Amino acid sequence: MNGRILATLFFEPSTRTRMSFESAIARLGGTTLSVGSVDACSMAKGETLADTIRVVSGYADAIVIRHPKEGAARLAAEFSSVPVINAGDGAGQHPSQTLLDLYTIRQSMPIEGTDIALIGDLRYGRTAHSLASALSLYNVRLHTLSPAGLELPETLAAELRQAGMEIVSHDTIEDLIGDVDVLYVTRVQRERFPDSASYFNVSSSYRITPEILSGAREHLIVLHPLPRVDEIDPRVDESPHARYFEQSRNGIPVRMAMLMEVLK
Amino acid sequence: MNGRILATLFFEPSTRTRMSFESAIARLGGTTLSVGSVDACSMAKGETLADTIRVVSGYADAIVIRHPKEGAARLAAEFSSVPVINAGDGAGQHPSQTLLDLYTIRQSMPIEGTDIALIGDLRYGRTAHSLASALSLYNVRLHTLSPAGLELPETLAAELRQAGMEIVSHDTIEDLIGDVDVLYVTRVQRERFPDSASYFNVSSSYRITPEILSGAREHLIVLHPLPRVDEIDPRVDESPHARYFEQSRNGIPVRMAMLMEVLK
Amino acid sequence: MNGRILATLFFEPSTRTRMSFESAIARLGGTTLSVGSVDACSMAKGETLADTIRVVSGYADAIVIRHPKEGAARLAAEFSSVPVINAGDGAGQHPSQTLLDLYTIRQSMPIEGTDIALIGDLRYGRTAHSLASALSLYNVRLHTLSPAGLELPETLAAELRQAGMEIVSHDTIEDLIGDVDVLYVTRVQRERFPDSASYFNVSSSYRITPEILSGAREHLIVLHPLPRVDEIDPRVDESPHARYFEQSRNGIPVRMAMLMEVLK
Repeated sequence: MNGRILATLFFEPSTRTRMSFESAIARLGGTTLSVGSVDACSMAKGETLADTIRVVSGYADAIVIRHPKEGAARLAAEFSSVPVINAGDGAGQHPSQTLLDLYTIRQSMPIEGTDIALIGDLRYGRTAHSLASALSLYNVRLHTLSPAGLELPETLAAELRQAGMEIVSHDTIEDLIGDVDVLYVTRVQRERFPDSASYFNVSSSYRITPEILSGAREHLIVLHPLPRVDEIDPRVDESPHARYFEQSRNGIPVRMAMLMEVLK
Repeated sequence: MNGRILATLFFEPSTRTRMSFESAIARLGGTTLSVGSVDACSMAKGETLADTIRVVSGYADAIVIRHPKEGAARLAAEFSSVPVINAGDGAGQHPSQTLLDLYTIRQSMPIEGTDIALIGDLRYGRTAHSLASALSLYNVRLHTLSPAGLELPETLAAELRQAGMEIVSHDTIEDLIGDVDVLYVTRVQRERFPDSASYFNVSSSYRITPEILSGAREHLIVLHPLPRVDEIDPRVDESPHARYFEQSRNGIPVRMAMLMEVLK
Repeated sequence: MNGRILATLFFEPSTRTRMSFESAIARLGGTTLSVGSVDACSMAKGETLADTIRVVSGYADAIVIRHPKEGAARLAAEFSSVPVINAGDGAGQHPSQTLLDLYTIRQSMPIEGTDIALIGDLRYGRTAHSLASALSLYNVRLHTLSPAGLELPETLAAELRQAGMEIVSHDTIEDLIGDVDVLYVTRVQRERFPDSASYFNVSSSYRITPEILSGAREHLIVLHPLPRVDEIDPRVDESPHARYFEQSRNGIPVRMAMLMEVLK
């Protein structure tokens, strides 16, 4: 991929997704063209996303975009003359994350027939939305656990059921821990709560600890899209259940494969 | 150009010029060394431009500089041990933009003998200044249209006339649209006006629309250095007159040629 | 080093050290993966340094880290699966700077047996600390000159003496100028002083000028880690004593050698 160029357009801050794509294209021999931050960019001068995309697609062979608005990547693809990869659009989708999530599960077990739990902010969390959608293509039972008000959006839940997925919602982590093969933990953002007390109340009751995991199936794996804050006790890092750092590293080969597909 | 390094020193925000140079060096196989933003750089610690240039020229094979002060690139060249390319110095010059402007015009018509209109902020707009200076090397008639107070600087106009250029100033877009072969549109910045009302008054009377273009010569081309805000109606994008996105894409081969010349 | 990746994690702003490492890896054919600024990174979301390092070490072949806290690089190395290079940790160490400092001295003279003066903020200046520690491996006499309150930390001075180094402290620049072979000048930050008057008083009395240098040994060399502000009169740049720009350029081959050692 020598001389091939991947433009990264991140309209929201991100370390790992951006770095993961940049590492992937570098491993393939190509180069990254980075739009620094939103402030440093023409959007600040009032340019439309359509114009930015039209211009940037004249500079690169593919575009990776992250944007705070749902549907932004789809819109970008309409105006781009090169392939566009969605690296997260608001509360919408995060497909490259989902591919690496599936890859990580498959390293440990076949996806078909498993029980998979999604924990945390299931309302705004795009990694959870993307993964749930992809899992509906398999024969999988979905278990959910989220604070009141942060449940899976009803329209998404309806789509998943329509696709034949069984969804079991739980009230406590203890309630589901013995029944699942995969624990997919996501961050609950403090901003979603009226005050610190209610945030800490929720976050501590969801926290994954070695004690909680003592009730788990032996082959259970714990995943997290990272960064984590308090959701997973650092003591879990040493446990054989912990797979989140491997999951993060899997971003490189999975994104290399995506780029090969898109740039070939 | 494998292993060759281009340093980009942007003391003013810019997406497209910076990305265009970075894309050009990457297409040639080389690498970019980027000074993030002004804040993240030593200038904040009180270093002189001369010292910054002396140091950076020890790290790279060429430097591209954008700076808010006129003459900064020339000053930089004095202290650099490697070639310096001016990517815009205040209200001064923007020569790489001019080269791609000329290249885009020449794709459609010979430059000699044409009527070329410059519209917008001709006082502070360095792309207009650079282009006008370059066009004075050709036998070209220059048409100008700008808000009161934002006319072409008198010293530049005198230089152009001295070089034999005829300059015709107009009061309305309707007045010139039938007489020109190239319409070079530039942004008028809101900050130049005392209030929003006078800004909108001016910007709406200069706006290029399909209706305005119905009075144009058949082969007229519309150029714009981008980003645009309200100066060109998006409906014009579909018109055969619109050339601004090709113009933007032409930045890559033109800047590749400049880098080849400078790094050979 | 084609396809090899160096991650630069700068939790403090820096132009020259970051650019110097980026240039070095580019000269070797490799690529840089840059975490923009601290704000744009996951640390802002509350991630621990340990997690950031674990993730980034999955993306790159080596990590260069600068961090405001002493010991951060050592901590990072514990959690990294790839080599970590310390590019400055608080008031701690700055070893790659020291290697290029030693290299620059050795270009002019053997290090053994010389008299070397450290001038400026010797309390917080990590370049001075690193260099002094390294020099204690040689038979060198150390001369120090610093404002009251900014002297070499007593613990470091004790370590140096323990290693057999003779340390001579001076009160004025005139007092030491005739007795040394190397003048290593560092910046004194205005923030260290209660008011501007006391800062200017100190900074002007330490300023290196051609007049001061008229009392120097013929082969004396003046070094500075840069950026400089007022510490060295620009008229000194032309003097045969000035070596600080060569010193800066020496950062490239020295860091190339470090990367070769670490990535081989």
